[in-house]
Amino acid sequence: MTNQVVAYLQENRERLLEKLYSYLRIPSISTDSTYKEDVAKAAAFTADYLKDIGFDRVTVQQTEKHPIVTGEWLGAGSDKPTALFYGHYDVQPADPLPLWDSEPFEPTERNGRIYARGVSDDKGQVFMHLAVFEAFMKTGGALPINMKVCIEGEEEIGSTNLHAVLHEQTEQFQADFAIISDSGMVESGQPTMLYGLKGAAALEFSVYGPDRDLHSGLYGGAVRNPLQAMTHILSSLKDTEEVIQVEGFYDGIEELPEEERKLMAQAPGENFTKTVGVPEAVSEKGYTAKEHTMARPTLEVNGMYGGYQGEGTKTIIPSEATAKITSRLVPGQDPADIVEKIMAHIKKHTPAGVRVEVRPEPFKAKAYKVDPNHPLIQKAAESLTQAFGKETVFVRMGGSIPVVEWIDTVYQMPVILLGFGTPEDRLHSPNESFPLESFDKGMETLVYFYEKVSE
Amino acid sequence: MTNQVVAYLQENRERLLEKLYSYLRIPSISTDSTYKEDVAKAAAFTADYLKDIGFDRVTVQQTEKHPIVTGEWLGAGSDKPTALFYGHYDVQPADPLPLWDSEPFEPTERNGRIYARGVSDDKGQVFMHLAVFEAFMKTGGALPINMKVCIEGEEEIGSTNLHAVLHEQTEQFQADFAIISDSGMVESGQPTMLYGLKGAAALEFSVYGPDRDLHSGLYGGAVRNPLQAMTHILSSLKDTEEVIQVEGFYDGIEELPEEERKLMAQAPGENFTKTVGVPEAVSEKGYTAKEHTMARPTLEVNGMYGGYQGEGTKTIIPSEATAKITSRLVPGQDPADIVEKIMAHIKKHTPAGVRVEVRPEPFKAKAYKVDPNHPLIQKAAESLTQAFGKETVFVRMGGSIPVVEWIDTVYQMPVILLGFGTPEDRLHSPNESFPLESFDKGMETLVYFYEKVSE
Repeated sequence: MTNQVVAYLQENRERLLEKLYSYLRIPSISTDSTYKEDVAKAAAFTADYLKDIGFDRVTVQQTEKHPIVTGEWLGAGSDKPTALFYGHYDVQPADPLPLWDSEPFEPTERNGRIYARGVSDDKGQVFMHLAVFEAFMKTGGALPINMKVCIEGEEEIGSTNLHAVLHEQTEQFQADFAIISDSGMVESGQPTMLYGLKGAAALEFSVYGPDRDLHSGLYGGAVRNPLQAMTHILSSLKDTEEVIQVEGFYDGIEELPEEERKLMAQAPGENFTKTVGVPEAVSEKGYTAKEHTMARPTLEVNGMYGGYQGEGTKTIIPSEATAKITSRLVPGQDPADIVEKIMAHIKKHTPAGVRVEVRPEPFKAKAYKVDPNHPLIQKAAESLTQAFGKETVFVRMGGSIPVVEWIDTVYQMPVILLGFGTPEDRLHSPNESFPLESFDKGMETLVYFYEKVSE
Repeated sequence: MTNQVVAYLQENRERLLEKLYSYLRIPSISTDSTYKEDVAKAAAFTADYLKDIGFDRVTVQQTEKHPIVTGEWLGAGSDKPTALFYGHYDVQPADPLPLWDSEPFEPTERNGRIYARGVSDDKGQVFMHLAVFEAFMKTGGALPINMKVCIEGEEEIGSTNLHAVLHEQTEQFQADFAIISDSGMVESGQPTMLYGLKGAAALEFSVYGPDRDLHSGLYGGAVRNPLQAMTHILSSLKDTEEVIQVEGFYDGIEELPEEERKLMAQAPGENFTKTVGVPEAVSEKGYTAKEHTMARPTLEVNGMYGGYQGEGTKTIIPSEATAKITSRLVPGQDPADIVEKIMAHIKKHTPAGVRVEVRPEPFKAKAYKVDPNHPLIQKAAESLTQAFGKETVFVRMGGSIPVVEWIDTVYQMPVILLGFGTPEDRLHSPNESFPLESFDKGMETLVYFYEKVSE
């Protein structure tokens, strides 16, 4: 049976890729309201595919922002387990556009990869599950287990509406386990079992000075410069040894266990000078870059602006400055509490002569960690090893998938994180891509996994 | 004779204002190359006016960037002194446009003021001199003294080409004294004699990290954030007590004399909370805001940008960050030396994991100070008092006029700074304006001054 399903995927490869490309051509950017219509188009595409496969009760649930696509196929019978598949069809903005070698929303194949915004995060990986469902239905007329599906359009902006739906419509999404492919492997072709994710907290703040831009000659020496004031605030958040200075920021975090440090040391590392072109890697004092990215919290300025940004010199003291900040959290930290602490730090470090306004952003999540020895995790790892023909490694990663924490909390079911991305995918960056090898072997992995789970 | 000239200016007021408005309608923004044609138009307007008045050898000298308008009228004879009038017809950018209550390049009269970019700095004040020349010629057929004119189009970007011309064509510009109206009075209606100006130095720098924007979850903890690194560099330049921390920055500056501190204390001060809306004024530790703005050096971040600046959250570590800095200097400081010292400071304070690139900007000038008891300064002060009907005060100001230093150095002649702007003029800001009172009484002052000088 398995061979037949895998064979179907191979025989229909070209058609399935074409279908994926039409999915990727939709610029479903959730953070920018000018793309609202395109986000809706991507939702419709997702729902139509589920209907074509033969899913029941396929619904495009409208929300205050972007719709949630749900559906189910329960034909495997009550003696078979039921899985909840989650994914997201929204993508990050494509800017800066000039840095793309091909159009972000015109999928292009180059050196064994598909280049397009969202191909790895997460439309490409969502499509792989749908294609596998299609393969099972076309070959055997059934899926090996019962399947519930929930695919949202707000993952890149905090999944606010999904949060409400998941907490209210608990009946609809109850299952034996959840499965998500919105992550990656430690390196291309290296099957990787993810057993931990970071949480997240986000905020934006502005520093306000004079009620207009001022002549720096006539007013310099009498008025606090909002840009200068903001640099004092931001530089006080984290020192040059990458240690976060926010009071109480590290409270409640358990020290990284020795065995985990060993595990991480064994996992293949990334040469950041080679992969992202930095002069050298830097990490929190006392921790390796691998330990910091996998298991220690971070705080990053994602964007900042104020004053004159045009050509040449403009001799002004600007009226205001703005910065965007996100923090990645580990088990023991609460997003709301961290936002509170950062806000308090900002206010405490705002010098005289300016006003500060802090605005928390909806993007937030608790960290997640699962027992690597759980039978479902083991079956997933075996499927990976079988498809990729290589031993699977176990790691934690710095990304945040808020829904993982919610499913864990609300449904008390394990979440299997089966991701097929690679470090070269350039998530959230220009020239995002996804290996065709991951596309093929990833779908093969899912076939094996659903088979094993149904046994 | 005087009354006749002043009368001419009053009788022709409406026509002269209309002519000024057509001058102000030209968006002669020198820093932005997209306005090159408009800058050329403003030069032509200036030259045509000089020809109409009856000036000889009126020339629009082309340069590598923007033209310099020159001309002369030497009919007063060799027994009369010769003056060099300098001004500039270029203006600052008008952005941010949404903050203007009326179009920046469509002059509008409101509550006794003319609103337009450049009306105070400096097209309006240049026009006043030309109108006074016209009045003398139309009424008496002559000017009371010999006059040479030099009006440039690069003052807002460092006067690079004027610098060359002034140093090469010394014959053409030799005179007994220079007169410039590119400054202001300490308050509206308060005649003010300027006896000192600040110098200036400018640079821009960028911090480069990864070769692209990175996912803050996957790379946070391994890569130095260029924005964060920049905040460390910028916050190290000046502490929260407004003391500049660049090594050797204050070297060679003479301590502010007690009598000058008294003089400054006597001059009317500005209530910054009222005039520019700041919570409170801040100034260098040990100096009042008046002392700091008039006679102590400053360092300001004029603009800064990096990473995501759009709507919502974008969880990236940005690839680079850029900041623009200008410094205002006092006697004893050399612009080139200060740029060197700031560059050294930036490089010294750049943390590991990022590269920094510093680019000096052409905008630079030495500070200038003249003896307040010089007979020409006294005649200017008397003319101010006579026209405004109020005792003249003597002050120094924080603005920079590079040409003043060059004239001082190359021609060893005194520079009379007769400015008619006011603190409410919003120079370099949205809603720049100039009082009609300054327009009228300023021209009257110039008539009296040229009369006194010819006696």
